Amino acid sequence: MGIRRISGGVCAAKGFRAAGVPARIKYEGRNDVALIVSDAPCAAAAMFTTNAVAAAPVVYDRAVVKGGRVQAILANSGCANACTGEDGLRDAELSALTTAGELGIDPGHVLVASTGVIGRRLPVDRLLAGMKAAAAKLERSEAAGLAAERAVMTTDTKPKEAAVQTKIGGRTVTVGGMCKGSGMIEPNMATMLGFITTDAAVTPAMLRRALRLAVDVTFNHVVVDGDESTNDSVFLLASGAAGNVCIDKAGPDFDAFVEALTAVGESLARQMAADGEGATKFVEVCVRGAKTRRDAERAARAIAKSPLAKTSWFGKDPNWGRVLAAAGYSGAAVDDRRAEVFYGRTWAYRMGRVADAAQLEKLEREMAGTALKVTVDLHLGDFAATIYTCDFSLDYVHINADYTT
Amino acid sequence: MGIRRISGGVCAAKGFRAAGVPARIKYEGRNDVALIVSDAPCAAAAMFTTNAVAAAPVVYDRAVVKGGRVQAILANSGCANACTGEDGLRDAELSALTTAGELGIDPGHVLVASTGVIGRRLPVDRLLAGMKAAAAKLERSEAAGLAAERAVMTTDTKPKEAAVQTKIGGRTVTVGGMCKGSGMIEPNMATMLGFITTDAAVTPAMLRRALRLAVDVTFNHVVVDGDESTNDSVFLLASGAAGNVCIDKAGPDFDAFVEALTAVGESLARQMAADGEGATKFVEVCVRGAKTRRDAERAARAIAKSPLAKTSWFGKDPNWGRVLAAAGYSGAAVDDRRAEVFYGRTWAYRMGRVADAAQLEKLEREMAGTALKVTVDLHLGDFAATIYTCDFSLDYVHINADYTT
Repeated sequence: MGIRRISGGVCAAKGFRAAGVPARIKYEGRNDVALIVSDAPCAAAAMFTTNAVAAAPVVYDRAVVKGGRVQAILANSGCANACTGEDGLRDAELSALTTAGELGIDPGHVLVASTGVIGRRLPVDRLLAGMKAAAAKLERSEAAGLAAERAVMTTDTKPKEAAVQTKIGGRTVTVGGMCKGSGMIEPNMATMLGFITTDAAVTPAMLRRALRLAVDVTFNHVVVDGDESTNDSVFLLASGAAGNVCIDKAGPDFDAFVEALTAVGESLARQMAADGEGATKFVEVCVRGAKTRRDAERAARAIAKSPLAKTSWFGKDPNWGRVLAAAGYSGAAVDDRRAEVFYGRTWAYRMGRVADAAQLEKLEREMAGTALKVTVDLHLGDFAATIYTCDFSLDYVHINADYTT
Repeated sequence: MGIRRISGGVCAAKGFRAAGVPARIKYEGRNDVALIVSDAPCAAAAMFTTNAVAAAPVVYDRAVVKGGRVQAILANSGCANACTGEDGLRDAELSALTTAGELGIDPGHVLVASTGVIGRRLPVDRLLAGMKAAAAKLERSEAAGLAAERAVMTTDTKPKEAAVQTKIGGRTVTVGGMCKGSGMIEPNMATMLGFITTDAAVTPAMLRRALRLAVDVTFNHVVVDGDESTNDSVFLLASGAAGNVCIDKAGPDFDAFVEALTAVGESLARQMAADGEGATKFVEVCVRGAKTRRDAERAARAIAKSPLAKTSWFGKDPNWGRVLAAAGYSGAAVDDRRAEVFYGRTWAYRMGRVADAAQLEKLEREMAGTALKVTVDLHLGDFAATIYTCDFSLDYVHINADYTT
């Protein structure tokens, strides 16, 4: 039957409740503590930053998810609890254990997630007061999911949620999620926190495999500025409440699940790119005709990260030379005598031929909107890759020139 | 005796004349064609961009420098002659051959260099008219060197020249040079064009070796925005007019020559970083205590390229978390419980300990000036590396959002 998009976020799937509350972690008057809780222990999988400087919650969670079972996630914005040494690790552990006590669940079944400024101690008292307030408000509703989403946002300007339904073994299965993105967004997930819940029944091992497959083509294809954060995490909890036969091996059920998970991941990834810090334009960079898959990825990433390409998109300037130059230094095989560059459906450069004035006018029209597709056809092979990104604006500099203070 | 800094650029060494003239390549009323000519064929070496998309002059010059002898360099700004296919190659060749004819020298002894917009045909008629005007004005003077330098500038705001003298085998040897930098400045040289002349007598083979040694620790340690250009080139011509015994092997004479060459390269590299597009601050990123030399380089480069670190320097915000996070994703071994971060001589983070309010005040003072040294001590080994870079300002976006149009 395929995938059906529905409304809702982390509460869309059966078996999950959520809440988001203000706890003055850093600012007054905004939600900054979120709690996501399942009715019973879930199969769980997660992926984390590959940054050698990993935040305390990442270090703590890595040990928890090894067990494969999770029942609650406590998340906060306003403080990353990164570069905080042994104190930070103790803060993360204390937060998780206190949450388990409050909820009356297994102390080994709680994950913690933080985002915000690096190098500040977590205000644990406020966080735990917020956790208690959130625990008292847990419910399964779109509003509760949205309140939780608002609590993890930092410089995000819009909440980011997605949910889909599909049939697996005759049962309706729901996958829903929320994320925060915005700055430090890069391959290997960047300061993004992603929370995905599903009522599918899946073993922890197959859940891990599904998450890796979905993240590889979604969250890992988002680039905002090329900075990879210390706190990146994507969590996936499966309650099993849909009543499907538990997915414990590859096959059609697994494929259907991965498809649904990827649909949620792709929607969240596009929302993150479109809401990149200071972005005025969502940009999809597609490299095709590459000699290898790796070449396609490398070239697309280099273009998506190039400050010169990104500022030209901001300026609505069809400066395809910067696009092709970025492909050229990416390490991918590129022959500029064979390559083509398109903005939208309009070519800017084809095999040594350069756009004339009439063509430039068309190109400028392609660049006028809030979404742009930049395509490079290398004409050297059959491989393609797409990266979701955004332009590089004056506001990016404004936002990041004055963030801690 | 060591190195003595003197004034002057490409005309500082004996045997070289230069000129720069306006030729309306792209703009009215500014020098945009430069000519550097030696009295007799020189030993020559050059290094070029590693970008797979190499501009026509780079393709042409690679063949010329293989011969090891060069007598003239014709350079222009306003057009990069890149992504111009076979036409562009013919334009480069025609320019070189016509220059040789005008100067009455060997047609295989002329190099060409271009910088400016990618994907536009070179206006050869204007370029050659400019070349002829320049040929009529050639002279050995500081003013002539400066006129040539002004002709290769693009978004550079200041001319960049350096010259030194040293003794080799009892003879006074001079090394002088000029360069343009500003945008697309990255490892492997970026859109930089560097022109260095010396009156030392050196064989082409030893000249190549000396150039590689000097570039590795100077031009290749400059990062502005992480974009590597299609046109990067550094040229080195040795006239032999100093009368030293020709350097044809490793030894004290070679070492003295490399030292002088490196001094010129380092001065030009610092000038380039300080004049990066939109820069308000020259930043020296030093990583020490690394496990390997490669780790030190990788970490320093990642910090120097991080848009989040660069915008925080612009905002005078001692956001050391971004600095450490960039080291963390660089691939270098980093342990945040052992690392230290300094701005100038003031620590911001040491082994889990975070700067307090009093310390933050000191840090803000360190960031107030137009030069900043950021040091990360990884405390994991004995290796160090320094990268010259700059901050990332609102003007960088202004400049690059509207360049071709």
